[in-house]
Amino acid sequence: MPQIEVGGAQPYTVTVAAGALARASVPESRVALIVDAGLPAGWVERAQTVFRPELTVQVPSGDACKTFEVLGGVLSRLAQANLPRDGAVIGLGGGATTDLAGFAAASYLRGVAYYSVPTTLLGMVDAAVGGKTGINLPEGKNLVGAFWPPRAVWCDPELLASLPPAVFREGAAEAYKHGLISDPSLLDRVLSPEFRPGQPDFAETLTDAIAVKAGVVSRDLTETGERAFLNFGHTLAHAIEAATQHSISHGDAVGYGMHYAALLSRELGGNDLTPYTRRFLNWQRPKALPPLKFSELNGYMARDKKADSQGVRFVLLHDLARPYLARVPEDLLGTTFDVWQSDVSSPILS
Amino acid sequence: MPQIEVGGAQPYTVTVAAGALARASVPESRVALIVDAGLPAGWVERAQTVFRPELTVQVPSGDACKTFEVLGGVLSRLAQANLPRDGAVIGLGGGATTDLAGFAAASYLRGVAYYSVPTTLLGMVDAAVGGKTGINLPEGKNLVGAFWPPRAVWCDPELLASLPPAVFREGAAEAYKHGLISDPSLLDRVLSPEFRPGQPDFAETLTDAIAVKAGVVSRDLTETGERAFLNFGHTLAHAIEAATQHSISHGDAVGYGMHYAALLSRELGGNDLTPYTRRFLNWQRPKALPPLKFSELNGYMARDKKADSQGVRFVLLHDLARPYLARVPEDLLGTTFDVWQSDVSSPILS
Repeated sequence: MPQIEVGGAQPYTVTVAAGALARASVPESRVALIVDAGLPAGWVERAQTVFRPELTVQVPSGDACKTFEVLGGVLSRLAQANLPRDGAVIGLGGGATTDLAGFAAASYLRGVAYYSVPTTLLGMVDAAVGGKTGINLPEGKNLVGAFWPPRAVWCDPELLASLPPAVFREGAAEAYKHGLISDPSLLDRVLSPEFRPGQPDFAETLTDAIAVKAGVVSRDLTETGERAFLNFGHTLAHAIEAATQHSISHGDAVGYGMHYAALLSRELGGNDLTPYTRRFLNWQRPKALPPLKFSELNGYMARDKKADSQGVRFVLLHDLARPYLARVPEDLLGTTFDVWQSDVSSPILS
Repeated sequence: MPQIEVGGAQPYTVTVAAGALARASVPESRVALIVDAGLPAGWVERAQTVFRPELTVQVPSGDACKTFEVLGGVLSRLAQANLPRDGAVIGLGGGATTDLAGFAAASYLRGVAYYSVPTTLLGMVDAAVGGKTGINLPEGKNLVGAFWPPRAVWCDPELLASLPPAVFREGAAEAYKHGLISDPSLLDRVLSPEFRPGQPDFAETLTDAIAVKAGVVSRDLTETGERAFLNFGHTLAHAIEAATQHSISHGDAVGYGMHYAALLSRELGGNDLTPYTRRFLNWQRPKALPPLKFSELNGYMARDKKADSQGVRFVLLHDLARPYLARVPEDLLGTTFDVWQSDVSSPILS
């Protein structure tokens, strides 16, 4: 089966193949399964058959699970089951579920083994690789967490076959982003009608999209350098998610945020990549945004994790596959916001 | 000033000296101070003068701060202040405060720099060194947390001078434990009238007691080997704390727990060290225990972090400074519990 090796202090393997879940196994004898409550029952049963967990904990779908309340409930369930230090936690669900499950594994008894089975395109391309786990605060997204790499990841395209088209398109944002920052061959491939579960080239394109992230995080495990480039489009995206209380999904927010970052990049002298981000938004058809004020979003952006004592840094592009980090003057953030807002309020971006 | 180096992937220095706090400094320009709400105002002001924090967060005294609710509140305060990734969190208080502050530092933005200024004997000898941070669950103590070593620790005996005698004696439990498991010279020195802040030999004995832990954790950073020996007396102690909702303090519980571990050690063929643990309890005069049932405590012990899939492991002693780990049959745990309960219910242990 196609595998991607992720390097670092604790290397692990990402398996990308139809049927990967059915052939998965873990060495730990005592296992807890944490699942998105919105998953089809058949998938949970399939995972239970494979992993034989002694408890299965359901958590709310999407970012509703990334709270202290849900985390505390999950950890109490693990403690009540006396899951031991040499036990394991397995997350089954989208990126939010695996973020939560990974942080539960990182913090339970100060850390037990973690395995990830993402069930969305977003979860496979982004959340499953890199070891970032965590939850949200009312003040912003992903402000609490740990670096806690999984011991293994299984990406099974069969799980994507029944995703609603809008959820699939949402998740393509991270794969397209990997095209913009690193592998431009992905740009056409991700938007192609061939990029659908069951199509012959699907697993290969998916593998290539995951490999971009795996390569970056293998070289930079704690986001001191190039790993920050993976956040292209994410500074505004996280602010949109926080300001809309997550009524805009992460993938849709990244679609919007990439266009803002492309506009900023152009303003700062980069090649004009907005045709690419427009093309993606026209293809993705993200959920329409509610009215948003720059002042509010700017407040959330100031809390971005890429901020340091000197201010917020944006990931920008000189050109395709040429990312860099830069501080952007606040007045430029504001004027570009107005251009962006006008663009994204049109049904079709020209 | 006397300093102890703690090794590992990220070495750090513990300074033990009267006036250490006044001479402390950190390189980070933006700093949050987390303080025990029960501290004398003068200490907090002294720390504020030294560290110039941009925010000071008060948390409830003792284990009342080691909850998800308090942790979430602290993290929200850090986010509201936009404490950046290159900022720092400084904990000022007893072991519970520094456990919480350290876990907040570990999880905020997936980890920022942490510094510790313990204000109790227990906090200096135990919590300040080793990088264990965390909070409690209703199911048991310290079940959630992270390994997150401080960048520096300042132990200032001046802060101990005004501790109530019972709190000082409580904290001596960990120093005495270090005598039992590693440095028997500490046994007499800790119980000596000279072991009081302001006495000439105090800082030296304190340094030696801290050095035992520093040595162990330098050799074993994630408790796979000898670090577990530091938990001598703690398996029952944690169960007592959980079963009494922390109305028995950690140090008092460790005093009780060491006697139980000494009884078990003797049962399993070790030298009889119960005269030492009796002597300590007579000196410590811990708070009296409420009625406790073995079945309940055994349930908490089964959730001990030293438990693995094969059962609970106890730290026992062949002799002074000869610790080992062993699984103990449940019937022996029960019969020894009865002996222990009879012992500790006497006002003076013979």
